[in-house]
Amino acid sequence: MSFSMLQVVKQCNSVTNADSVAESEGHYWLKHGGSKVGLVSAKDITALEQACQEHEQAVFDIDHSTRTLRFSASLASQESRSSAVAALLTEMRAKQSWASLLKWRDELYPIYGSNGELVAMVERAASYTFGIRTFGVHINGIVQGSNGETRMWVAKRSATKQTWPGYLDQIVAGGIGNGMGAGESVIKECSEEAGIPEHLARAAKSAGTVQYFARSELGFLPETQLVYDLELPQGFVPQPADGEVQEFYLWTMDQVVDGVRQGLFKPNCALCVVDFLVRHGYLTPENESDYLEIFDNMHCPLPFPGPILNKM
Amino acid sequence: MSFSMLQVVKQCNSVTNADSVAESEGHYWLKHGGSKVGLVSAKDITALEQACQEHEQAVFDIDHSTRTLRFSASLASQESRSSAVAALLTEMRAKQSWASLLKWRDELYPIYGSNGELVAMVERAASYTFGIRTFGVHINGIVQGSNGETRMWVAKRSATKQTWPGYLDQIVAGGIGNGMGAGESVIKECSEEAGIPEHLARAAKSAGTVQYFARSELGFLPETQLVYDLELPQGFVPQPADGEVQEFYLWTMDQVVDGVRQGLFKPNCALCVVDFLVRHGYLTPENESDYLEIFDNMHCPLPFPGPILNKM
Repeated sequence: MSFSMLQVVKQCNSVTNADSVAESEGHYWLKHGGSKVGLVSAKDITALEQACQEHEQAVFDIDHSTRTLRFSASLASQESRSSAVAALLTEMRAKQSWASLLKWRDELYPIYGSNGELVAMVERAASYTFGIRTFGVHINGIVQGSNGETRMWVAKRSATKQTWPGYLDQIVAGGIGNGMGAGESVIKECSEEAGIPEHLARAAKSAGTVQYFARSELGFLPETQLVYDLELPQGFVPQPADGEVQEFYLWTMDQVVDGVRQGLFKPNCALCVVDFLVRHGYLTPENESDYLEIFDNMHCPLPFPGPILNKM
Repeated sequence: MSFSMLQVVKQCNSVTNADSVAESEGHYWLKHGGSKVGLVSAKDITALEQACQEHEQAVFDIDHSTRTLRFSASLASQESRSSAVAALLTEMRAKQSWASLLKWRDELYPIYGSNGELVAMVERAASYTFGIRTFGVHINGIVQGSNGETRMWVAKRSATKQTWPGYLDQIVAGGIGNGMGAGESVIKECSEEAGIPEHLARAAKSAGTVQYFARSELGFLPETQLVYDLELPQGFVPQPADGEVQEFYLWTMDQVVDGVRQGLFKPNCALCVVDFLVRHGYLTPENESDYLEIFDNMHCPLPFPGPILNKM
C-alpha cells in the first residue's frame, strides 16, 4: 500500500466544506454570540439533550429548528460556563452518554469567541464531540550529520495511547491546554514526552502552522498546529519519559518519506512531515505533481475564531 | 505610517470572498467547461463585447443572464483559442479598449482547466482584466554573515517599471509565462534581473508557496507564488541586468522588517517577506498577535484550477 502525498494530507484534512457537511448530515453548530465555535453530530445532540434534561442546572440551549447549540444565557461568564459544563460532562461520563468521554484526559481545552476571548474551558476528551477548534505544538527533531545528511527523530506511539496507538509521530507533539502558551507547551512536552532538557528545547525554532478540518469516529477536529524545528546534537538520544512513546527512531529523510507513504504516521503527524518536506526543499514543484493542491490541504481556513496567541 | 504584519498581508490578499464580491459588484465569471477560470468586471465586459462585435471572428460568448463569459464553442483547441484571443486583444490594444493593454508585455500567460489542461495562452497584460490565476517565482536572496547574522538582498524596482515602480521587491521575482517550468523560470529570472550566474542560482531551495486573491485598478490577481530561498556567497553583488531593478540593497532583517512595516515593498513581495519571517522563526506565536490570521491570508484558497506543475 502506498499513498501519494496529496492522499496523505487529505486523509487528515477530510472535511473540505464544513457548511455543506453540516447541512447534508444534519449536524448542529455550537454558537457563541454571532460566531460558530463548534460542530456537533445530531446523534451526540440527542444524548446531550437527554443529559441536560436529567441535570439540575441549565447548561445548554438547543434549537432544533436552526440546529443550533448555545451555552445557556444564564451562564454569563467564562468561569460559570466552564464549571457548569464540567459538572454536566462528569455526569455524562458516568452514564457513558458520549463515547469520547471514555477517553477522559483531565485536561482543559479552551473555546474562543470572535474577539479571541475565552468562552469556556472544556474537558479535552469532549473537544472532538463539541467539534471545537483546538491547538497544538508539533516539533520536528532534526540531527545534521557530519556528512551533511539530515536525519529526523520519529516517535512510535505507545500501544496504550488513547488515540492512534502504535502509529508514528513527531519526536514531540501535544495539545495546548490548561491555559498554557505555545512556547511553554513546547518546553513542557519536550521534557515530558522525550526527556529533552530545557536548554536543548529552547533551541526549537517556530516555523509556521499547519491547519486542517479532520473528523474521526468521535467527532470533528478543526485543528491548528504550531510547527517547530528543533536541531538536536548528534549524541543526544530522546527517552520515552511519560509512557506516551514506546520507542524513538533516528531515520534518514528517505525512511521518513517511506513511512509517510506507507501510512505508518498518525495522519496529522504525516501532514506535519509533509510541511517539513516542503519547507526544506524535499518536495518541490519539479518532483511533486500535486504540489499546489497539497498547500490547500495544509492551510485549510477554519470557520471558527481563534485566540490572540501571545495572550493565551 | 506603520502597518501591522496582518495589514500587510491583507493589503495583498484583499478579495477574501470572490463569490460575494462577484455577486455584489456584478462581475462576470470566465468559465471553461464546468470550471470558473477568471473574473472580469462588468465595465470590462462592456468593452470586450463591443470589441467582439467589431471583430471578424467569434472569440467569446457572453451570457448576461448568468453573467458568464466563455470562449466561443467554435474554438475547439488550446491553439485556436490562443490565436483567436491574441488577434482580438491586438485590436483592443490599438483601440485602447482595456486600460490593462497599455501595459502590453509580449509574454503569454496560461489559463488552466479543471484537470490541469491548458485552455488558452493570453497576453500577460490582459491577465489582470481576465482575472485569471497566475503563477510566479519569488526568490529570497540571503547572505549568512560570519557573525551569524542573516542579511537579505532587496531590490528597488526601476522607476520605469510598468507596475509598482520604485517599490521594494525580492532580489529576483517573476511571472511564470511562455510555457516555462518553475525551476527554469528561477534560473532565467536570476540571470536576467540580478546577474546571478546559473551555478549560484541552482542553489535556490524550494520552500513552499504563498497564495492570495488581490485586486488592482486593472482587475483581479488570484496568484500563486512559488517561494525559494537562495543563499548567496558573502562576496557576491547582484547587478541590475535588464533594467527592471534600479538598485540592490543588502539589509539586516531588522531593516527588511522596517521596510515592510513602512509599506515600502510591493504588496505581494511584502507578503513573501512575511512568509520568510514566519518560516525562519522571526515572527512567532509569542511576538506576533495576529500569527494565526496571517496564515489565512498567505494561503488563500483560490476558486480556479491550476496546472500540474511538473508538467507545465
